[in-house]
Amino acid sequence: MDNAIDQSINLKTAQQLIVNACGALGEERIALAECLNRFPAKALTALEPLPGYNQSLRDGYAVARGESGGAGEPAKSFRIVDEVAAGDTRNLALSPGEAVRIMTGGLIPLHCESVIPQEDCEVVNDTVGVAATALGLNNTFIHAQGSEIAKGELIVPQGLAISPEQQILLAGVGYETVPVVRKPGVSFFCTGSELLVATEERRAGKKYSANSHLLQGLIALAGAELQEQKSVQDDPDAVAGILGDMSRSGCDIIISTGGMGPGKFDLIEEAFSRVGGKVIYRALNLRPGKSTLFGVIGRTFFFGMPGPPPAVHLLFNELIQPAILALQGAKRCVPKEIKAYLREDLYLPRRGLPRLKGGFLSFKDGNCVVRPSKRGEAANCYIVCPATRRHLRLEEKVTVHLFRLSPDLG
Amino acid sequence: MDNAIDQSINLKTAQQLIVNACGALGEERIALAECLNRFPAKALTALEPLPGYNQSLRDGYAVARGESGGAGEPAKSFRIVDEVAAGDTRNLALSPGEAVRIMTGGLIPLHCESVIPQEDCEVVNDTVGVAATALGLNNTFIHAQGSEIAKGELIVPQGLAISPEQQILLAGVGYETVPVVRKPGVSFFCTGSELLVATEERRAGKKYSANSHLLQGLIALAGAELQEQKSVQDDPDAVAGILGDMSRSGCDIIISTGGMGPGKFDLIEEAFSRVGGKVIYRALNLRPGKSTLFGVIGRTFFFGMPGPPPAVHLLFNELIQPAILALQGAKRCVPKEIKAYLREDLYLPRRGLPRLKGGFLSFKDGNCVVRPSKRGEAANCYIVCPATRRHLRLEEKVTVHLFRLSPDLG
Repeated sequence: MDNAIDQSINLKTAQQLIVNACGALGEERIALAECLNRFPAKALTALEPLPGYNQSLRDGYAVARGESGGAGEPAKSFRIVDEVAAGDTRNLALSPGEAVRIMTGGLIPLHCESVIPQEDCEVVNDTVGVAATALGLNNTFIHAQGSEIAKGELIVPQGLAISPEQQILLAGVGYETVPVVRKPGVSFFCTGSELLVATEERRAGKKYSANSHLLQGLIALAGAELQEQKSVQDDPDAVAGILGDMSRSGCDIIISTGGMGPGKFDLIEEAFSRVGGKVIYRALNLRPGKSTLFGVIGRTFFFGMPGPPPAVHLLFNELIQPAILALQGAKRCVPKEIKAYLREDLYLPRRGLPRLKGGFLSFKDGNCVVRPSKRGEAANCYIVCPATRRHLRLEEKVTVHLFRLSPDLG
Repeated sequence: MDNAIDQSINLKTAQQLIVNACGALGEERIALAECLNRFPAKALTALEPLPGYNQSLRDGYAVARGESGGAGEPAKSFRIVDEVAAGDTRNLALSPGEAVRIMTGGLIPLHCESVIPQEDCEVVNDTVGVAATALGLNNTFIHAQGSEIAKGELIVPQGLAISPEQQILLAGVGYETVPVVRKPGVSFFCTGSELLVATEERRAGKKYSANSHLLQGLIALAGAELQEQKSVQDDPDAVAGILGDMSRSGCDIIISTGGMGPGKFDLIEEAFSRVGGKVIYRALNLRPGKSTLFGVIGRTFFFGMPGPPPAVHLLFNELIQPAILALQGAKRCVPKEIKAYLREDLYLPRRGLPRLKGGFLSFKDGNCVVRPSKRGEAANCYIVCPATRRHLRLEEKVTVHLFRLSPDLG
């Protein structure tokens, strides 16, 4: 036991080992509509300029070039020769003295000086009269081709998840499909002869596996693809069999729950080494996390998680989510670390190991404040509790780790 | 134009009208594994106690009752009569002087005094010797049935999205399926004769519809179900036809983009009233948002959005996301409002209307700080800019609206 702690490493080292081990996966092309929160396979640059053509910013009249007015000059008049609705793709050209009626978004004709908004125009039959002062202004009400984004300009850097703002720009510069890093495929199995499987009847001695439900949800929320899930008895042959099958199935990550730590039925590490797995680390200097293992079987990463579901939830956020992000080439993989003021005293059961405790972060008049979350309450962060402390004080500034996606920041 | 502003209402009033109009939808039963972030159809209480049976907290020996020791007494010994692994469902009973070997999670036999952890036991053949001091302690290493949660205890209150913590508890207290409010079905159409449809070739005068891609992503992230999407020419008959079809198809929300505001092709409101739609409000006292409409057609809610995609993104967060939450019975539907310090001066183009500006919120040594987001950069909040100000100052405390799900809090 003491020996295990001696071999243990701290959380930051573990996260670094994970992120370094997990290089970006291969590329796939997906529809633009599906790209939100996905990671680009390479930096995405403008395929075409934005706007793609000169377009009108107003409903009004596009008037011919060479008719600049001035403060002293009388109104000019133009002969209305055509009408351009938005979506009209004809390449019209204006001769001197001509104008076309044009709608917002309409394609500007060649030899156009500017668009005169309709409220500045006086139309009589097929002639439009324009105040001289409305001509030769700085604002031509023309949204010029490429004035927002030049062809080749950077839209999405590598390593950042595509945001709605970037998706809008990608649509504007010609993307219909987007090259992204494929989603990591994750398989998991829950060990425990006490776990009820499928439709087995509930009775004393057996329980439902909260972990299998939990992991399905967390894997989807984390942006990975659930490949396969199993429950397995506390039997070394069965566990080795599943580990072998899953690693050969081509998934990127395998997760197990339970079967870790000292004891008669602690079988994960034995089965793992039997199928040729290589341990990268086998214990964290952290509570929870003393019994957790990270390694590789061939090209598949393996996370051995402890049995208690709250520990699985925490370690998923701190260890597996970073792996899922790293496998997609994310620049920032580990939970964001921020400072917050404690809203209440926090007592810890004992010293000896650093501890992460579920917290509820909220904001009060410009300050970040945090308190331990209650049992069964949704945490939105973890509070870092140093090994040397048993009492963290009200108002004290503590470090918290944010969840990546938190629907309910306080 | 001025007239339209006079009829406009402020954002908070609009949000209140939306939330009041959108009552919770009907119930459906889903698998426990799919319940994360869904809203319960009613308060969820424990179907069974947790733990469901008396279980061992250690690997060790369950010893018979009536053998309490004391500091002065010699060690006791018990005859080992059986072994209980986790998952063993036999109802064993101990007679005086008997013990069974038991594993963590194993079902405690009847007439058991306590579990003695194996490190405190000495086993010789079929006899286990226990130090007298290990008996009669406060800690029996028995996790008693119902000691965590009693049958009937509240697990998830109504109006809150189910969290991983609550899902874990639901698994423990006997839920295999969960009654949740069904997801709102959303259909949308983008108007604009300038929009390219499907595989149409790109050329000057036509552009891609960023809105159709954007809305697909936002609807999914918001927790709703995309039902149908269309593009439509700027034609009143076509728009009225789509509005009628979509409202009869049984979707809960219809969204349109474009075709709003004054001008020759402003056709949404006309088509909307032609199909019997009732306007709840037709303009916001907000930039962007002057041209937006909320109403009902029969039992379907309708949001008329302006054309520019950044405005659609913003109004989706402020108006449509609240509707999607309210339709699921959420207690808190509108974006969370917090205070943050401006990290840089913020200049606005003009006075006259309150404005929401995309912002990037981050945390600095316990403080919330915010700056306007750059073009194409992912915003994670909106900065509220009052109508009376053109310059918000560095270090000033401003109000910001958080996004519900923000993967990248700074």
